[in-house]
Parts: sequence; structure tokens; C-alpha cells
Amino acid sequence: MPTMTTLTVDGMSCQHCVNAITQAVTGADPLAKVTVSLEQRKVTVDSRSLDKGQIRALVEDEGYEVVSS
Amino acid sequence: MPTMTTLTVDGMSCQHCVNAITQAVTGADPLAKVTVSLEQRKVTVDSRSLDKGQIRALVEDEGYEVVSS
Repeated sequence: MPTMTTLTVDGMSCQHCVNAITQAVTGADPLAKVTVSLEQRKVTVDSRSLDKGQIRALVEDEGYEVVSS
Repeated sequence: MPTMTTLTVDGMSCQHCVNAITQAVTGADPLAKVTVSLEQRKVTVDSRSLDKGQIRALVEDEGYEVVSS
């Protein structure tokens, strides 16, 4: 089933951060749609295979802090 | 001759930025020593082959603004 997950993430500051997070998520699910807002500190993922815990772990593994989910 | 160049650069915000700038400079001179301070907004390069104008161009090509040199 489709799943839309939004996390609030600290430490994302530039386009490199956007790319790093996007690539980490699409590396785990190539069909995922990833949207990152630096201004709102939000990462939104539409994925049929990744749950919130997995997405959170992928973001944290890139060195960012998930402050709410 | 050895040259030490320090630029003040806007827009460097994270370790990805440090890596991007370091790789751009060492791509042009593999022997260059590059130090980036995010806090001080400084890029310092010790290179025998790159002059200040070339270093400035490399940093700008990565999408950063050199505000003083």
C-alpha cells in the first residue's frame, strides 16, 4: 500500500543535504518519491515499501537528527 | 613557489560543502592542501600551481559566493 511519511529533520542546510537524503531513500526504494524542504525542515517520502522507521533510519544514517515523525 | 590563499566564502553550511570545495580544488591540484572553516567562512588553500583567481573560480563553480579574497 502507498505510504506517505513526513519527518522533521535537523541539520539539513543545503542542496547537498537534499541530494544525500534523496539518494539514501531512493537507494532503498528506487520508486520512492522524496521531497525535502530545507526551510520547513521536512522530509516527505511516498513509498510502498519503506515504513516510517526505515525512513527515519536512512535519514539518521546520513548524519541528520529526526526531531519528530 | 608555494602559495597560501585564503578566501571568505558565503553559503558553505555543512560537511558536504567542505567535501565539494575540497574535491574541486584537489581535482585541479592533487597536491593542494585545503582547509575549510564553516564557522569562519574561510577556505584556505596551500598550492604551488593554483593562483588566487583559479581557486576563486573553482569555489564559485561549486555554487558558492566568494565575498573577499
